[in-house]
Amino acid sequence: MDIRFEKREHLQEKPDQKNLGFGKHFTDYMFVMDWDKEQGWHDAAIVPYGGIPMDPATMVLHYAQETFEGMKAYRTAEGKIQLFRPEMNARRMIKSNERLCMPGVPEEMFVEAVKALVKAQEDWVPSEPGTSLYIRPFMFATEASLGVHMAKSYKFVIITTPVGAYYAEGINPVKILVEDEYVRAVKGGTGFTKCGGNYASSIAGQVKAEKMGCTQVLWLDGVHRKYVEEVGTMNIMFKIAGEIYTAPLEGTVLPGVTRDSLIHILRDWGYKVNETHLSIDDLMKAGHDGTLEEAFGTGTAAVVSPVGEFVYKDDSVIVNDFKIGELTQKLYDTLTGIQWGKLEDKYGWTTPVE
Amino acid sequence: MDIRFEKREHLQEKPDQKNLGFGKHFTDYMFVMDWDKEQGWHDAAIVPYGGIPMDPATMVLHYAQETFEGMKAYRTAEGKIQLFRPEMNARRMIKSNERLCMPGVPEEMFVEAVKALVKAQEDWVPSEPGTSLYIRPFMFATEASLGVHMAKSYKFVIITTPVGAYYAEGINPVKILVEDEYVRAVKGGTGFTKCGGNYASSIAGQVKAEKMGCTQVLWLDGVHRKYVEEVGTMNIMFKIAGEIYTAPLEGTVLPGVTRDSLIHILRDWGYKVNETHLSIDDLMKAGHDGTLEEAFGTGTAAVVSPVGEFVYKDDSVIVNDFKIGELTQKLYDTLTGIQWGKLEDKYGWTTPVE
Ligand SMILES: Cc1ncc(COP(=O)(O)O)c(C=O)c1O
Ligand SMILES: Cc1ncc(COP(=O)(O)O)c(C=O)c1O
Repeated sequence: MDIRFEKREHLQEKPDQKNLGFGKHFTDYMFVMDWDKEQGWHDAAIVPYGGIPMDPATMVLHYAQETFEGMKAYRTAEGKIQLFRPEMNARRMIKSNERLCMPGVPEEMFVEAVKALVKAQEDWVPSEPGTSLYIRPFMFATEASLGVHMAKSYKFVIITTPVGAYYAEGINPVKILVEDEYVRAVKGGTGFTKCGGNYASSIAGQVKAEKMGCTQVLWLDGVHRKYVEEVGTMNIMFKIAGEIYTAPLEGTVLPGVTRDSLIHILRDWGYKVNETHLSIDDLMKAGHDGTLEEAFGTGTAAVVSPVGEFVYKDDSVIVNDFKIGELTQKLYDTLTGIQWGKLEDKYGWTTPVE
Repeated sequence: MDIRFEKREHLQEKPDQKNLGFGKHFTDYMFVMDWDKEQGWHDAAIVPYGGIPMDPATMVLHYAQETFEGMKAYRTAEGKIQLFRPEMNARRMIKSNERLCMPGVPEEMFVEAVKALVKAQEDWVPSEPGTSLYIRPFMFATEASLGVHMAKSYKFVIITTPVGAYYAEGINPVKILVEDEYVRAVKGGTGFTKCGGNYASSIAGQVKAEKMGCTQVLWLDGVHRKYVEEVGTMNIMFKIAGEIYTAPLEGTVLPGVTRDSLIHILRDWGYKVNETHLSIDDLMKAGHDGTLEEAFGTGTAAVVSPVGEFVYKDDSVIVNDFKIGELTQKLYDTLTGIQWGKLEDKYGWTTPVE
């Protein structure tokens, strides 16, 4: 792929690595590439980060033909930079785009673009413990037209932002509201994709959870309102009587890269991992009878996020005395160890940016 | 409301009224207004139609916090301009926005903005039979930030476009695919709103329908995949053995202004209108045994759109010999008669723009 490079006149000052937050500071450059029927993908370029002029009839502003990905670049102790399974994000975006009738960015092109952008501004990958460069590839319909149809043109953009820990409170256990009013996804819908619409519709549940003193929402399935699916922006796993449970990938749950990686590690360690429908009643029962040993969300942003409490209707259960579980901690240490290059990567999951 | 007016230097040439299409030509001006927590709605202005610069981290491009409305301005035989129940659109947008945790534009402000914009460019309201000025109010999150949360700032925009008939083929009966794979909406979701995400996820069904030689999709409910809900961008009504059937407003179906108006007219004419769950099996059965007398979609764009055939799995039924039904035609004539000021508006549905 031919990537044009447009130099920026004045580089920005870098933010304090100890106070990065999430998605607040954007780096000096972004990657852009356009698609239309005649030319396919064309005009790949790394250009100064900045505004994109948009016609008010641009379809993405009306019909939300838009998808995104989320991944990170990690700085190792030796100062090298590496990505974690970027091809999984590339493939997931292709699947998201298929569902939304948008063209896919071929896997190799996607990974090459990510690497080129990170390489072009390697100074932006922070080195403080727990920090990384968050990478946000996204694509949207650019045709200016009001008929509801597959757009004729799209833009693929990658922006990056140095980030600290996702949750202000660190990896402390969180309190989660089990949502029984709003629905996130249903079979036949877009639950398995990272399309904008899923997130817009999820905000109401998140706001409600916060009003009730919870940090996140646990979604139930849309048909029976009974089976546990996933959390706001994480998949979720439970350790019950020594076995692991997590929702199966049947179209309603996002196939998380973290989820997949942890399942590999867990099975490697000899755990039985059940990708199965767990009902909220069984979960609450396990909480009450003491067999629910640990629970944790999994996702790129937070890696592993222990759950301290589930609130469901008038009931609530505390998990592991609101403390980080032993397995949760070990998974966190192992995966972050691989990601930041502190542990041997025996799965071949990391890719250097050089 | 104080509306600043920014004059455009060169007005555009107007398109041929006989070849308008839908949503292809945009008028000289647009209405814009901003919202943030401190100031609420502010900076209302009518400005030259043109690009809006957008930071690539603008939340609407990632999480689709966006809603829209669709309505029309009609030119009467006397040359006057009128709107049709604009307060219904205002209220529906408030409901859409509530679900997506976006601020509402107060009803009066919404209607005033629409009128001011139409008034400012009255020459753009076409006069050829069947033509009108389509009005597209929409709102989106403008905050540049990557956390998934309620945005802190929004933009409300109204653009307008002179339109001919929505369907190229006129009000001829269309062939409709009953969709049993993709789902549009489920209770607890966003089906009752005009949010972008609903439309992005619907495109796959539409593409599939077109591949099968159909014009539109008929959606079934997301839980049982059994009850008839609505068509692509229309509600749908059936005349079966003399009575009217249409899906009830229970959160999955858009509360159409046209649907509501036709129900009023039908009841006025003495028809029994059943807002009830009609199963696809009962519909196909009625098609086969001859009791399905007429079927038509209802919406602002097409007004009334007769259905000539339903295709469901391996089965299909022809409605009324693929001809426009008598009642369908009468409803079309009545509603368009009121909208274009040819018939007395005994319901008080029209509002002059003066
Ligand atoms: C809805 C949802 N589920 C799960 C995840 C976790 O996916 P991953 O592990 O690939 O970050 C995310 C975040 O990307 C998400 O948005
Ligand atoms: C999904 C959907 N259903 C129904 C309608 C019809 O609504 P209305 O009659 O207000 O145009 C529309 C169009 O606005 C729509 O997009």
